[in-house]
Amino acid sequence: MFDCNNPELRTWVPVPQDSDFPLQNLPFGIFQPPGLLPRAGIAIGNDIIDLSELTNRGFFKKLPIKYVSSFDQVNLNDFINLGRNAWRAVREEVSKLLHVDNAWLRDNTEARQVIMHAQKSVQMLLPVAVGDYVDFYSSIDHATNVGKMVRDPSNPLLPNWKHIPIGYHGRSSSIVVSNTSFHRPYGQSKLPTEESPTFGPSKKMDFELEMGAIIGKGNSLGSRVAVEDADDHIFGFVLLNDWSARDLQTWEYVPLGPFLGKSFATSISPWIVTLDALEPFRVANQEKIAPVLPYLQTKKPGNFDINLDVFLENSNLKEAFLLSKSNFKHMYWNVSQQIAHLTSNGTNMRVGDLYASGTISGPTPDSLGCLLELSWNGTKPISLPDGSTRTFLQDNDTVVLKGYATQNGVRIGFGEVRGQVLAAL
Amino acid sequence: MFDCNNPELRTWVPVPQDSDFPLQNLPFGIFQPPGLLPRAGIAIGNDIIDLSELTNRGFFKKLPIKYVSSFDQVNLNDFINLGRNAWRAVREEVSKLLHVDNAWLRDNTEARQVIMHAQKSVQMLLPVAVGDYVDFYSSIDHATNVGKMVRDPSNPLLPNWKHIPIGYHGRSSSIVVSNTSFHRPYGQSKLPTEESPTFGPSKKMDFELEMGAIIGKGNSLGSRVAVEDADDHIFGFVLLNDWSARDLQTWEYVPLGPFLGKSFATSISPWIVTLDALEPFRVANQEKIAPVLPYLQTKKPGNFDINLDVFLENSNLKEAFLLSKSNFKHMYWNVSQQIAHLTSNGTNMRVGDLYASGTISGPTPDSLGCLLELSWNGTKPISLPDGSTRTFLQDNDTVVLKGYATQNGVRIGFGEVRGQVLAAL
Repeated sequence: MFDCNNPELRTWVPVPQDSDFPLQNLPFGIFQPPGLLPRAGIAIGNDIIDLSELTNRGFFKKLPIKYVSSFDQVNLNDFINLGRNAWRAVREEVSKLLHVDNAWLRDNTEARQVIMHAQKSVQMLLPVAVGDYVDFYSSIDHATNVGKMVRDPSNPLLPNWKHIPIGYHGRSSSIVVSNTSFHRPYGQSKLPTEESPTFGPSKKMDFELEMGAIIGKGNSLGSRVAVEDADDHIFGFVLLNDWSARDLQTWEYVPLGPFLGKSFATSISPWIVTLDALEPFRVANQEKIAPVLPYLQTKKPGNFDINLDVFLENSNLKEAFLLSKSNFKHMYWNVSQQIAHLTSNGTNMRVGDLYASGTISGPTPDSLGCLLELSWNGTKPISLPDGSTRTFLQDNDTVVLKGYATQNGVRIGFGEVRGQVLAAL
Repeated sequence: MFDCNNPELRTWVPVPQDSDFPLQNLPFGIFQPPGLLPRAGIAIGNDIIDLSELTNRGFFKKLPIKYVSSFDQVNLNDFINLGRNAWRAVREEVSKLLHVDNAWLRDNTEARQVIMHAQKSVQMLLPVAVGDYVDFYSSIDHATNVGKMVRDPSNPLLPNWKHIPIGYHGRSSSIVVSNTSFHRPYGQSKLPTEESPTFGPSKKMDFELEMGAIIGKGNSLGSRVAVEDADDHIFGFVLLNDWSARDLQTWEYVPLGPFLGKSFATSISPWIVTLDALEPFRVANQEKIAPVLPYLQTKKPGNFDINLDVFLENSNLKEAFLLSKSNFKHMYWNVSQQIAHLTSNGTNMRVGDLYASGTISGPTPDSLGCLLELSWNGTKPISLPDGSTRTFLQDNDTVVLKGYATQNGVRIGFGEVRGQVLAAL
């Protein structure tokens, strides 16, 4: 059987040594070349394979027609809805097309000019239309740190946390693709020392380092997805920045949870790396500190060894400043457990749903996934090379999240998700 | 100017005395006649005017073509997206068509057979595709009662409540139309007396009496909607039952809010009553118990005098049992304030968004909007005429919410939203 992940596979496309997009990755995205309509593509090296133009050239004629009619859309939902066999067939065909020995496109300059686009020449769009967006809270280090800061340092984890993959529904409308900047949000906040709340620009703008799972197969209302079957429902993953206005969140969140402190923007990376491409990077689940109810029990390794880096950029900084180095393997509850829990009451998932991991913090001070933890709620300013400090984000700060996994000399990466905080309007 | 709301208007359609759908209402919905495709309709008496067939007969030829191409859809989003002038033009044209003196349809038996459907002969569908669903918590009596029960009887309102229209994002995928039954959800719960949680069918199934606003005009990401302009963004209202599994909710909701205790089903009534039809029923806002920040201040009456009844049905009961009589005017924060708050951080609303009021309880014991309050968290069982009692819902119980406003002999009603709790699977 043909194996897209085979580390021996080589392509004729020039792929830089440190590229996130070698032949073994082949992630899906939606892009718009100048003057043309949006369409589906696959990233390879610094280029994009245009699935719509491949179709026009008859490349997919072996595949069912319904596969290829889904490439001319403004999002991947129709394609994803075709199911895993379709995703695999397209990745396989493109893998063969790009194989070093395949001359069909390699030696056809005219076809390459139409079918291949330089990534820097196009605009990336949101890859999916998100139905329901859920944000979990599944890193034990993050939950423990937040508990120490805002609740009880001696007993930071709430009683339910070790039994439930805690999560909440977030806002779908304001999910934006990488490179979308936004203005610092206004909102209500109240310091403990203040009599009454004030309304103004957030003073505690934060990022949150997260991964997002894109749902590839729904379930019907009233049915549950068993933890062992959850993988069947995952199309792939993106990087996700759950921008957070901590002062708004602190004042509003009791008793119904975060609302406006989160809903102004959530950024995701444009390329969806398929679960298939990530299979080699599965690692063991974290040890559980309390017994887990049967519907959440799983022996299958459900964590992924994906390096996650957070950079701060600002025109005053000569180069991007590394704020944190974490890893997706630092999840207490894995995505299969999140899906099993989410559907345990019979609710229905839909193709394109986005389920975020929650802030991914590691156990060490240099692996924390947000400024709330890195600056310990503003009490430990972070020194930057330009002499300035940060507790929370300043206007014009850009946060860049990067993610990649490596094994046997193959690097499967996510590119980046980048966003800039502009001054409040 | 022609006034659809004029109480003097009479129709040739037989409209029963107590009908929710007189000529002055003309609510929009999506229905499916047997063997035909879904289409948009307007309710009149016990009948439906088929907007798609009216189009086929050339009735709307005066109106722009884009108006009428939106009637052949599985939801009203495209139509709503046309804007208030379109909604008004269509209601006006249909009002004139149904006027007692208009012979065009009245005297054409053959056309009536195609254009009019008995409501009992068709299936009603979800009227909109909901992007973001938000559930507020804006009745002071409800928030006070819940606070007394689960927090502090002497200080029931949390400090933020009187400053913020508290709300949270709910699940869009499981919003269902009236007459959809569902199975009692499973989930985690833990009594204070229990060592660890258990997983099983909810033991505290509840309804919540709410109204839902359907957004008719979006705003762009980064913009805010002023409280005075919020009405421009409302298409209309539906009845909404925010089904709640109290035992799941109690165990899960700290610190990120309700999740699986609510996400298994939310029911709405099929007919969207337009804001225009409800204008005559505006009443004053509630007195505020604390100063309100400027962005939430409004002098315009933003409450609506709409009677709301809750009935329990069960095969053991000879007739529907009236559980509660409330009124939409019992809102501390009105819908304009909710919209101003929701967008105050610059998040974007989309056409079809659904914003629920939160449980609408009145100040008296017979006007409470959920069983949690009516049975005071199970401590005061409600006696039913068949000799049984209820604290929370039993399997096969059906809850029916009804709503109507009356003035000058005109009754503008919502019909009902009905749902049955089946045994857990």
